[in-house]
Amino acid sequence: MLVDDLDTPVVICDLDVLERNIHEMAAFCRDLGISLRAHTKSHKIPEIAHWQLTSGAAGICCQKLGEAEVMVAAGIRDILIPYNIVGRAKLERLARLARRATITVAVDSEETARGLAEQAQADDVRVGVVVELDTGARRCGVQSPEEARVLARTLVRLPGIDFRGVMTYPSRPEARSFLEETIRLLEADGIPVSVVSGGGTGLEVVSKELGCTEHRSGSYVWEGRTRVHSRDDLHPDRCPLRVVCTVVSTPAPGRIIIDGGMKTFASYPPVPYGYCVEYPEIQIYAMSVEHGHVDTSASSHRFRVGERLTVIPLHQEMCLNLHDELVGVRDGKVEVIWPVAGRGKVR
Amino acid sequence: MLVDDLDTPVVICDLDVLERNIHEMAAFCRDLGISLRAHTKSHKIPEIAHWQLTSGAAGICCQKLGEAEVMVAAGIRDILIPYNIVGRAKLERLARLARRATITVAVDSEETARGLAEQAQADDVRVGVVVELDTGARRCGVQSPEEARVLARTLVRLPGIDFRGVMTYPSRPEARSFLEETIRLLEADGIPVSVVSGGGTGLEVVSKELGCTEHRSGSYVWEGRTRVHSRDDLHPDRCPLRVVCTVVSTPAPGRIIIDGGMKTFASYPPVPYGYCVEYPEIQIYAMSVEHGHVDTSASSHRFRVGERLTVIPLHQEMCLNLHDELVGVRDGKVEVIWPVAGRGKVR
Repeated sequence: MLVDDLDTPVVICDLDVLERNIHEMAAFCRDLGISLRAHTKSHKIPEIAHWQLTSGAAGICCQKLGEAEVMVAAGIRDILIPYNIVGRAKLERLARLARRATITVAVDSEETARGLAEQAQADDVRVGVVVELDTGARRCGVQSPEEARVLARTLVRLPGIDFRGVMTYPSRPEARSFLEETIRLLEADGIPVSVVSGGGTGLEVVSKELGCTEHRSGSYVWEGRTRVHSRDDLHPDRCPLRVVCTVVSTPAPGRIIIDGGMKTFASYPPVPYGYCVEYPEIQIYAMSVEHGHVDTSASSHRFRVGERLTVIPLHQEMCLNLHDELVGVRDGKVEVIWPVAGRGKVR
Repeated sequence: MLVDDLDTPVVICDLDVLERNIHEMAAFCRDLGISLRAHTKSHKIPEIAHWQLTSGAAGICCQKLGEAEVMVAAGIRDILIPYNIVGRAKLERLARLARRATITVAVDSEETARGLAEQAQADDVRVGVVVELDTGARRCGVQSPEEARVLARTLVRLPGIDFRGVMTYPSRPEARSFLEETIRLLEADGIPVSVVSGGGTGLEVVSKELGCTEHRSGSYVWEGRTRVHSRDDLHPDRCPLRVVCTVVSTPAPGRIIIDGGMKTFASYPPVPYGYCVEYPEIQIYAMSVEHGHVDTSASSHRFRVGERLTVIPLHQEMCLNLHDELVGVRDGKVEVIWPVAGRGKVR
């Protein structure tokens, strides 16, 4: 089957570019001397996760428990969930996973810590934990090295808990004093810190400079080693994800409508929404829910109804999250149709 | 099972409010003297579509062919797809549907028209069509009454095509001259216009004043009879859709993190993202992909990890589109768990 045989809109992935991105990041982290923990939230597809592990990633990361369940069911055995797991239903699921794989979760409060310990004890499993540090992102995380010390002291005393270390996101040079002071306090207490986990595609060197033992990167599979911030960063040689669309209307000169809108591309971030491989000069300037509005005034090509266009979406992770399948292609041929197995696993 | 027994994040729907919204819009259109065509893109759930028909809607609308397939499979027999259906794969599917139900599609070009006719003839079915008019929205649609006349003249001569009339979106007072002139030209040609279809929740009266025979409304199921434009319009008495979340972190005074972010609520529109039923004074001020960032500084309540919050999302349709199931509740009890059967039907 050829890409041209697929009905649109359809999300496809250039397997050559995907594999190159995977290998280049693995090699880069190996040369840098930092463990790569591949964040699978960006793709949610077990086979891609296995490729990442085979190429050199030391483990994977899942952002939600439901994603981790998908990956463990696919045979993956070392997963960090950098998220506070809260509530009986999730704790029971976590304990079941911990029986089958090495699971580490993030903790930033005593409430979360005690929930984990009670469940681990009840189910006779062990759960790894890292203390999440808020080094400036103002999301989750303890607010100071002293808070980290208090929480770590609690954690090492709790049953069923393996204290592993600390994590932060994203890795920034400003995090240095927070990280160093935390590690100093913990070591002064005799609490060994075996994991210092940083994160964010493109911030691998920062993590290394901060003294991190591992780095969590996800979007590199779709963006290469440096983050994509705008349409100008999108290029077919580095961005393997594409949405093939069809022109469904050519209502007026300089404007066409394609069959993908917010429910196909995702609505974040705002304009411009993507890069057209065939005609980079055209601009998707607006989206309604099921239509893409394209300004073609800069192009000399005369677009016609039924013509197909290949668009690299700007927020690849959010885009792929809308689709049940991803079609892997090489040289215009369909090589694999992957279910996006972790899609919709919001819990 | 109680709502409190559901793990979070979970999308629930207050069935009393949903039913009231459905009945009120049906009664309003009946009193107004205009047919209501319920747009099911807002919910994508067959049983809700049946409720809309039972309460008085004359038919339904689906924005994508895949959604229409779901609804026909659920026994619904009159569907308008206000979208140009282009390409062999979709045309074959459309012909199969046209054998089992009365299907009308929008057309704004001769290319689309000829594709429909060839397929209808090949498969010996009849497909209804309306000409889409661009009365100012600058999306799809012919650009002038004269263009509409040219296309209608083509359509009435094509085999397998039942010309029904015209449509526009949204219904606006400025559309009057375009609509009236188009109808005048068509009638002068002896082309009967049995359908004049307007659309947009809250614009029913405008459609009536424009002389429309039917009005397409969708979001009224989630928003009531007038459109929700901001968080101030959200209220539990009119908005039945809610996302139940759990507080997973209370990192600093005045700020909490909940377990729903862009993959739970959708990322459009931007801040503020929703209305908290229990504490309307708090604000979801930012979202990352899996976290919601909440400013609680205006509240005297002391939030704790594990506490549940009920949030009415601002863009209900995009939110629901991320989830596989919708839980219908009444008085705190789970009454039904609907698969969101039309979710992900991007083709």
